Amino acid sequence: MYRNDGFRELDRQECLRLMAEVPVGRIVHTRGALPAVLPVNFCLEPDGTVVLRTAAGSELVRAVDGTVVAFEVDDIDAVRQSGWSVVVTGTASVVTDPEEHERLVRTGPRSWAPSPREVFLHVSSDLVTGRELVGGRSLYGLDRQ
Amino acid sequence: MYRNDGFRELDRQECLRLMAEVPVGRIVHTRGALPAVLPVNFCLEPDGTVVLRTAAGSELVRAVDGTVVAFEVDDIDAVRQSGWSVVVTGTASVVTDPEEHERLVRTGPRSWAPSPREVFLHVSSDLVTGRELVGGRSLYGLDRQ
Repeated sequence: MYRNDGFRELDRQECLRLMAEVPVGRIVHTRGALPAVLPVNFCLEPDGTVVLRTAAGSELVRAVDGTVVAFEVDDIDAVRQSGWSVVVTGTASVVTDPEEHERLVRTGPRSWAPSPREVFLHVSSDLVTGRELVGGRSLYGLDRQ
Repeated sequence: MYRNDGFRELDRQECLRLMAEVPVGRIVHTRGALPAVLPVNFCLEPDGTVVLRTAAGSELVRAVDGTVVAFEVDDIDAVRQSGWSVVVTGTASVVTDPEEHERLVRTGPRSWAPSPREVFLHVSSDLVTGRELVGGRSLYGLDRQ
């Protein structure tokens, strides 16, 4: 469905499919009562759960564990004025089950700045929204909607 | 200064210089008590104020006008595991001065999905933080810090 503001809304399946193509997202949370955001690399579980990897005891873990966060991923081409953005909103929680942790050590996201002790964060995909920019100068030269 | 977690902190000047190279950022705010985030294109004023352009009366304007937001910009190379991220935290406010509005019509950010009536948002650069990823597989093959 095309909205008046030039964006096409994406359904859950499209959103998850697009997210899977990009290795880095941004976790949007609250820190010290202020809005905060941090790029992190991630993986997607088959059910849409987002998996992050970070240092145990890091500020990020302390700020988000047990809270509602948004996780944003996009791919925007500024030259062509096209692209898409997906936001997963859900609860972040540290993975405490030892077997699950081991499984994610093997299959989960890599850490770009490894630490001696790392934990995995799950973000439940309770709400998944996305939009695709359909503009006047899209890749295929479509007329402005 | 190199932090233990593999990131180099950037000073304000470096942050603003890097931001100026990228046309799109993400405005991090609160909507319906939930964390929310939206990619938008932007310009930087010489004093570091972030300028956004959006449809008058849009959900974004209603959600952020007069509130504290974070504005994030990054450039991350997933293959090289390198990149940087900058966050400006400040108050968002609609530009109401007619002369200032006209000036921004000429010099401000383009809108990718223009609307009949648009407004400009300022985000004051009260807090500017940034980090550069210095990892084990950086572009120049530096050893892991």
